[in-house]
Amino acid sequence: MKTFYTSIFITFLTLTTFSQIQQKIVLNQPDTSRGYTVMHALANRASEKEYDTINLSLQDLSDLMWAANGVNRPEEKNRTAPSAINGQDIDIYAFMIDGVYFYNAFDHILELVVEGDYRDIVAGSQYWVADAPVICVLVSDISRFKFGDDDQRMLWAAFDAGIVSQNISVFCASVGLATRPRASMEIDKIIDLLNLTETQHPMLNNPVGYPLK
Amino acid sequence: MKTFYTSIFITFLTLTTFSQIQQKIVLNQPDTSRGYTVMHALANRASEKEYDTINLSLQDLSDLMWAANGVNRPEEKNRTAPSAINGQDIDIYAFMIDGVYFYNAFDHILELVVEGDYRDIVAGSQYWVADAPVICVLVSDISRFKFGDDDQRMLWAAFDAGIVSQNISVFCASVGLATRPRASMEIDKIIDLLNLTETQHPMLNNPVGYPLK
Repeated sequence: MKTFYTSIFITFLTLTTFSQIQQKIVLNQPDTSRGYTVMHALANRASEKEYDTINLSLQDLSDLMWAANGVNRPEEKNRTAPSAINGQDIDIYAFMIDGVYFYNAFDHILELVVEGDYRDIVAGSQYWVADAPVICVLVSDISRFKFGDDDQRMLWAAFDAGIVSQNISVFCASVGLATRPRASMEIDKIIDLLNLTETQHPMLNNPVGYPLK
Repeated sequence: MKTFYTSIFITFLTLTTFSQIQQKIVLNQPDTSRGYTVMHALANRASEKEYDTINLSLQDLSDLMWAANGVNRPEEKNRTAPSAINGQDIDIYAFMIDGVYFYNAFDHILELVVEGDYRDIVAGSQYWVADAPVICVLVSDISRFKFGDDDQRMLWAAFDAGIVSQNISVFCASVGLATRPRASMEIDKIIDLLNLTETQHPMLNNPVGYPLK
C-alpha cells in the first residue's frame, strides 16, 4: 500500500513538473511595421559577443523566428529566406533556458524537442554565449535537395545557412537586439541531443539577446 | 603616308572608345533613410527571375554595393556583412553592360577590371539573366582566413557568400529592386576573365534590376 501511494506521489510530481514546460509556444503574428529601415539596420549591424540574460518578449521571439526563415507567402509556401533549388533545407532549433524548441514555420509555433538547458553545448568554450536567452541553431537537412552529390549539397547547405543567419543579423539590427553568426559549437553533442539523422547537419548558430548594458 | 594617317586615325578611334568607358565609378554616399523597414522588406522578399534591362540609377547602384558588403564602421574597418573570423573574404564584381567592375568597399568606388559585356558567362544557360543591368558576382578569397584547411575555408566562404547575398536580397526588397541568389554560372570562364588566383573562388551571383512590368 505504501508503494502504491509513493507511486501515485511520484506520478503527481512528474505531471506537475511536466506541466511547467510549454510543449508548444504559439507565436505572435509578425509585426511588419516595426523597426528601422534595411539601410538604417545595415548601418547599425555589428557582431555582438555578449548578451543580457533576460528573456526575449514573445513579440521579439516571434518576429525573430519569422524574420529568420518564416513563411511570407503562405499560398506558395515560400519563405523570407531563399534556398538552393527551393529546397527549404534550413530548420531552426531554438536553444532556450527551459528546453530546445523546433521552429515549425508553417504553423508559426515553437515545438518542444528536449526539456532542459543545453545552451552550453552550443556555446562550447565561449561559455558566456550561453547567457543569451535564445541561441538559434541552423540545421540543414540536405535530403531536401532533390539532386546533387553530397559535396554539392553541403555547399548549398552552407549558402542557405549564411542566408538565414543574415536574416537574423539584419532583423536584430533593426530592433536593437544583439547577435552574431558562429560556426563553432559542439556538433556531435547537438546531433545526439536532437536525435538528428545522417542528412541533418548543424551549420551555424546565432545567439540572440538584448544588448548587455 | 597613307599608312601614317590610317595609324593616327585608328589611334584616335581607340582613344575615343577608351574614354567612353569609365575607369572608375565614384559611388554616392549610402542613403540610410530610404526604403522599407526590415520586417516589411522580409514580407516582400521573393526570388525574381526576370529583370528590366534599364540601368540602375547611381543611387541604387551605390546603395546596392554598400548594403551588400560596404564599410559601415570606417574606424574599425568593419562591414555590413559579418564574415568568418572577420576574414572579409567576399569581393563583389559587378558585371555591367560596359564592363566588369570591382567594388572597392573602403574607397566606395567601382574600379574597371575588364571592358566589355560579359554578363552572358554569369547567366550561362539561363540567358535571360543577362538582361539584368548589374550582376553581382561574389568571389571569396580564402587566403584571407588566417587559419583552417581548404575544406574548412571553403565552408566559411560559402557561409560568407550566403550572408552577402542575403544583404542584397533584403536591400532589393526594401527599395523595389528585383534579385535572386544563383549558384550556377560559368565559373572557369569567370576565373579566366578576371584573372583570379588559385585562392579566389566565385561562389554565388545575384542579378539585380528593376522588376519587369
